[in-house]
Amino acid sequence: MNNTITSPKGFMAAGVHCGIKKSGKPDLALLVCPTGAKAAAVFTTNKVTSAAVQLSKEHIKSPQIYAVVANSGNANACTGKTGIRNAQKMSAETARLLQIGNRKSEIENRSILIASTGIIGHQLPMDKITVGISKAAEKLSTSASAGLDFARAIMTTDTKPKQAIRKFAIADRRLPIENPGSQIANPVITIAGAVKGAGMIAPNMATTLCFITTDVAISKLLLSRALKTAIDNSLNKLTIDGHQSTNDTAIILASGLAGNRPIVTQCPRYKKFTRVLMELCEDLAKQMALDAEGATRMFKVVVKGAANKADAAKAARAIADYDLLKCAIHGGDPNWGRIICAVGSVGVKLNPNKLSCKIGNITVFKNGTPKKFDVEKASKIISQTEHTITVDLGSGKHSDFCYGCDLSAEYVRINAEYHT
Amino acid sequence: MNNTITSPKGFMAAGVHCGIKKSGKPDLALLVCPTGAKAAAVFTTNKVTSAAVQLSKEHIKSPQIYAVVANSGNANACTGKTGIRNAQKMSAETARLLQIGNRKSEIENRSILIASTGIIGHQLPMDKITVGISKAAEKLSTSASAGLDFARAIMTTDTKPKQAIRKFAIADRRLPIENPGSQIANPVITIAGAVKGAGMIAPNMATTLCFITTDVAISKLLLSRALKTAIDNSLNKLTIDGHQSTNDTAIILASGLAGNRPIVTQCPRYKKFTRVLMELCEDLAKQMALDAEGATRMFKVVVKGAANKADAAKAARAIADYDLLKCAIHGGDPNWGRIICAVGSVGVKLNPNKLSCKIGNITVFKNGTPKKFDVEKASKIISQTEHTITVDLGSGKHSDFCYGCDLSAEYVRINAEYHT
Repeated sequence: MNNTITSPKGFMAAGVHCGIKKSGKPDLALLVCPTGAKAAAVFTTNKVTSAAVQLSKEHIKSPQIYAVVANSGNANACTGKTGIRNAQKMSAETARLLQIGNRKSEIENRSILIASTGIIGHQLPMDKITVGISKAAEKLSTSASAGLDFARAIMTTDTKPKQAIRKFAIADRRLPIENPGSQIANPVITIAGAVKGAGMIAPNMATTLCFITTDVAISKLLLSRALKTAIDNSLNKLTIDGHQSTNDTAIILASGLAGNRPIVTQCPRYKKFTRVLMELCEDLAKQMALDAEGATRMFKVVVKGAANKADAAKAARAIADYDLLKCAIHGGDPNWGRIICAVGSVGVKLNPNKLSCKIGNITVFKNGTPKKFDVEKASKIISQTEHTITVDLGSGKHSDFCYGCDLSAEYVRINAEYHT
Repeated sequence: MNNTITSPKGFMAAGVHCGIKKSGKPDLALLVCPTGAKAAAVFTTNKVTSAAVQLSKEHIKSPQIYAVVANSGNANACTGKTGIRNAQKMSAETARLLQIGNRKSEIENRSILIASTGIIGHQLPMDKITVGISKAAEKLSTSASAGLDFARAIMTTDTKPKQAIRKFAIADRRLPIENPGSQIANPVITIAGAVKGAGMIAPNMATTLCFITTDVAISKLLLSRALKTAIDNSLNKLTIDGHQSTNDTAIILASGLAGNRPIVTQCPRYKKFTRVLMELCEDLAKQMALDAEGATRMFKVVVKGAANKADAAKAARAIADYDLLKCAIHGGDPNWGRIICAVGSVGVKLNPNKLSCKIGNITVFKNGTPKKFDVEKASKIISQTEHTITVDLGSGKHSDFCYGCDLSAEYVRINAEYHT
């Protein structure tokens, strides 16, 4: 069974080594939708953006996208005008090789999205990239192994490829008038995704490199809306070190080949699609947390009793980002004082006399007073691969959540040794 | 020569082990000014404050302070009403033992400041504390070793006591009318300080436990103003892990015994005192950075070209707090891309085409374009005990700075193993 991004109808992929990474590992990934796809994307909110992000922000406006080319090992960020030119070359070269349509060069170029990840401040080795794109174009395939090659080629300090897939039947009651031959009853929609995770991940941005394919037929506007909703409630709830990269990009391509009646309103079918897309993104987010640089476990922080939603989100993130707590969780130490300390320092409204905290289902602090609890049991809970911390601010009725992971000495080792 | 907080005229100190710390290390510190001192303090801005902070915030309003009692190993934070009662007992017991004045008990109690640091959420062992205060009161001395004992007794994960001293002559031209006998010509003023550093340190708060003594004669109002100015430009410029503790407290006591004409206006003598106090606090801040949990080196971040002062401060802190950069500095890697990434993610106004960065005196990035530089030389600079990173945002004329330190695997080890 194909669980990769080539699983939805209409996609081919490839991943090759072109020489950016000294390790010899795959570093160039290509995803192609030969019939053209509706596309949507979210990008980093960092004010310094990579050349790839700047270019793709323009290209995403094209009505049809034919391919996404991504490289790992070099971010093409902080690279000035040369960087922009190299990003343009990367998309032009892909357009040329794929010989998309017979329109003039400028239009073809704009039908390609690009993404880069890796070290900042170095120029892309364009000779290698050009050869790599050509090599990848030759290897393009709809096979599962081609999808896996793609997922591997976007990795940096990831220890394993991260992929997810969801399928669901859509209830299509009537045939579309304009093209009855292409529609089938209750067609199955497939959504698949691959992400590049590790460090430099925080909410309020597109978060890392994330590529999603689907064969659903949907309008560009609704595809964009669904992606935003899904990312906001999954990848944007994940914080690994509180940092926003210059390169974060999430792209979804919809080939429209599933045979469903096109989704053009916010109908129940749209809602179903959005919900499944969100589940897929949650799956990817959790895989990212567990494969964060040096991470050994992840946790969910739920903040209740907030005066407003923004306070709840801010407090949840402050806890999940708190190095001292992340270290304690790494050590299996239910040091809940650090949770309260994080909440207090972030400037949200709270009632110290109603402030409460739970580790898993164990109440450790209630109404501003510490509770006797089974330390060994609490330690076991936070030593699990996944657990939940709940904090009640005692100030209102709003809640929100956030995903985080532990902080290990391995994180420091990885980031102290990452080469310049 | 006495370089400790007992050096200024009028102070006695002691530090003992009373049994809060299982290690047997000193955990109770006492500082006494038998003649009564003018006092000022700044406290944490964390919304969750320790019982000690809550009590001292009230007691600091007293016109005279006779003693400061501090314990390490237990923060007395998140301890509810019992915690408040224990804090009150701690100050009452100190007042009783020191037999301050012959006024009624309530007033005596209010002449004592207290401070606690250590684990959150555990009740203070009051039997041990009471015995400890009594033991410390018996050992009170003006000697250098007593001052050092005090500095040792406030330590938690610090590897060494942190102290600083400054002396300066004050130009007093005329004798005070009211008390000519007590005034001497050009008296020497001494200021001495001891701090407890390590983790949980960030700007915009009183930062850690900091005790300063001086023999200057000064009004309470001006003492308070001088302390705030000094802390804002030193300890509050230091970020170790971006976290505000529930317990941070900086206290200054002025015995007024130096023989100077009392400082009651913002005259040149006030400015001189404030400047020297700031130098002393800078000295303490740098010692704290270098003795931060697991830290091996420190750095100063200077942000120039900001649209306003707040942006400059925010950007400087974002850089100094950036785990990925802290790891790179630990590894001696001049990975300047992480500096730019940190600046871009914090939401300050910047001009990507004018953005520039220097490591020491080496320009690595200028006007949005990377510069060729000697990587080995840059690596040597960031491997020094202290170096400066300069960023120009290209958006205005304002600047600010911040101190930071590297992030090592040792930080994680310390904070994963810290007991609950």
